[in-house]
Amino acid sequence: MGVRNVITIKDVAKDAGVSVGTVSKVLNNIYVTVANKEKVEQSIKGLGYQVNTYARGLKAQRTNTVAIIVPDLISPFFALLVNYVEQALSEMNYKLLICNSYCKKEKEIAYINMAKQNKVDGLICVTYSNSDEYLRDDLPIVSIDRHFKPKVCCVASDNYRGGKIAAEKLIETGCKNIVFIRNGSNINGETLKRGKGFIDACEKAGIDYCTKEFGEETTLEKGGETEHKVCCFLEQCMKNGKFLYDGIFTSSDSLGQIIIEKLKKMGLNIPMDVQIIGYDGLRALNVGAYQLSSIKQPVKDMAVTSVNHLMKLINKEPVDELTILPVSFVDGGTTR
Amino acid sequence: MGVRNVITIKDVAKDAGVSVGTVSKVLNNIYVTVANKEKVEQSIKGLGYQVNTYARGLKAQRTNTVAIIVPDLISPFFALLVNYVEQALSEMNYKLLICNSYCKKEKEIAYINMAKQNKVDGLICVTYSNSDEYLRDDLPIVSIDRHFKPKVCCVASDNYRGGKIAAEKLIETGCKNIVFIRNGSNINGETLKRGKGFIDACEKAGIDYCTKEFGEETTLEKGGETEHKVCCFLEQCMKNGKFLYDGIFTSSDSLGQIIIEKLKKMGLNIPMDVQIIGYDGLRALNVGAYQLSSIKQPVKDMAVTSVNHLMKLINKEPVDELTILPVSFVDGGTTR
Repeated sequence: MGVRNVITIKDVAKDAGVSVGTVSKVLNNIYVTVANKEKVEQSIKGLGYQVNTYARGLKAQRTNTVAIIVPDLISPFFALLVNYVEQALSEMNYKLLICNSYCKKEKEIAYINMAKQNKVDGLICVTYSNSDEYLRDDLPIVSIDRHFKPKVCCVASDNYRGGKIAAEKLIETGCKNIVFIRNGSNINGETLKRGKGFIDACEKAGIDYCTKEFGEETTLEKGGETEHKVCCFLEQCMKNGKFLYDGIFTSSDSLGQIIIEKLKKMGLNIPMDVQIIGYDGLRALNVGAYQLSSIKQPVKDMAVTSVNHLMKLINKEPVDELTILPVSFVDGGTTR
Repeated sequence: MGVRNVITIKDVAKDAGVSVGTVSKVLNNIYVTVANKEKVEQSIKGLGYQVNTYARGLKAQRTNTVAIIVPDLISPFFALLVNYVEQALSEMNYKLLICNSYCKKEKEIAYINMAKQNKVDGLICVTYSNSDEYLRDDLPIVSIDRHFKPKVCCVASDNYRGGKIAAEKLIETGCKNIVFIRNGSNINGETLKRGKGFIDACEKAGIDYCTKEFGEETTLEKGGETEHKVCCFLEQCMKNGKFLYDGIFTSSDSLGQIIIEKLKKMGLNIPMDVQIIGYDGLRALNVGAYQLSSIKQPVKDMAVTSVNHLMKLINKEPVDELTILPVSFVDGGTTR
């Protein structure tokens, strides 16, 4: 399904029954017959084609620069995403501005405003604040993982299936009581489906489960508030020397790593006492084995797809509103 | 020690015995007395002040954009470096273009050329090719880790001391035969001092040691050529069920991770059979414990120092030619 509000000069030409060149002439106040001028002007009005968006597409006005908004590059998943976005853009002779928001709304909005001021040709964003109102119809945007109220092209991994696979794997390997632990924004986005897939699989299997949320902070820090809260929760789950859950699914590998280290300190054996599955599929320092068992996101594919979609939007071509890319389970030794 | 070729408008004013405003007027062809004009022109000539560099400093000509060249963001150290460079620049209202070179000379040169064409106000680079000739005196540049033939401001961690600490730690904990394994460029840079510090400490202690180099590729890939070569070498070090070395120091944590996984597969116990110390000081997924015992680089301090130095260069102020920042040993469980 195409994004409806991207009306191209081709659409206008087709609707008016004239050539693209004729439409271009009308837009640039170059002489055409009165009849053609009227046809084109009627089509522009009828289709809601925005004349001012046309100017942005002119080659001379392009900056050949794209901006990407991510929370930070400390999270290895975002660093990899930015790496592959830069690689794909570089092949198209585009430059990349990196904008770290640290999940702060004011930083996200400042970067969106910079993009709107035509300092970049387009924007790829991984944002978590309620910044819908700051977007503009005619700014080419690809959003990763999250939905905006004005329809914005979105690319995500198959979060629902990821959650489902994780629960099924834990159940299949003998878990009787499992928990989904997540942190991060509750804003309308694809990542919330991780929990839905998990819950549906648990319900279907008729197994004991629960879910636990930890704050709005997407960025995890060593020694930070979220780590502290998560560790307190894990301690409370220890009753009479026995841990309440035999399986844990986490919303990210980073959160999984924090949990693994805490459980080990509490004297639990992973995966014999508790199995853990993260989300992302990261390798140790990106060169070693998988850091933990996980649902692997196709990060390179997500980056390349986002760039391809953005290029289409910049060129006023239609793109799919939502692209969901496949995930897979990877064994990192924290499952049996 | 200041970079000599950065002569500022202040230097000209001081030398001519006039105000900065008078120099500015002369440069912009605004009327001043003939006597003052002559004084200023003589000072400009005498000091070798480059008039064309002045124009770049004019606020109106600035892009408020800086570019950073790094091999990639797959290496967690570079991703952290870029993260903190962006953070420091953002506080100064500067934007950051990210340029991944994948250690390819042609990509490094293409990015340097872009910077030279005044599309950015300055450049921070982590480069490994022989690209000295492509630099230009009047482009503000801060180089991390590596020296160029034209004097370029350089920021690095204390690589010599890092190598020394690593060897001393291995010796102190009972190692009798240790090896330094490195990969990456042999170009003139600070990182080569890791080996020098290691060797000096071994010589001083009178211990058996050797060094082993693996190619020019700085970027390590899972399943890549360097990994293959390193693993073959480690297999050759196994003689009659005994591993030749009881201590290993590696040029990066990533290389250390590859070696740890291979040695474990070969049935060796770390740290009981072999101790390993890396270089960088990275935490598991940046939120957990140290991935391995290592020499920790002050990555945030390196980023902030580089940005501060670059801002001084952009403002035609003198900067230190070489800044060495302190390192420390961190215990990641791969040493006794």
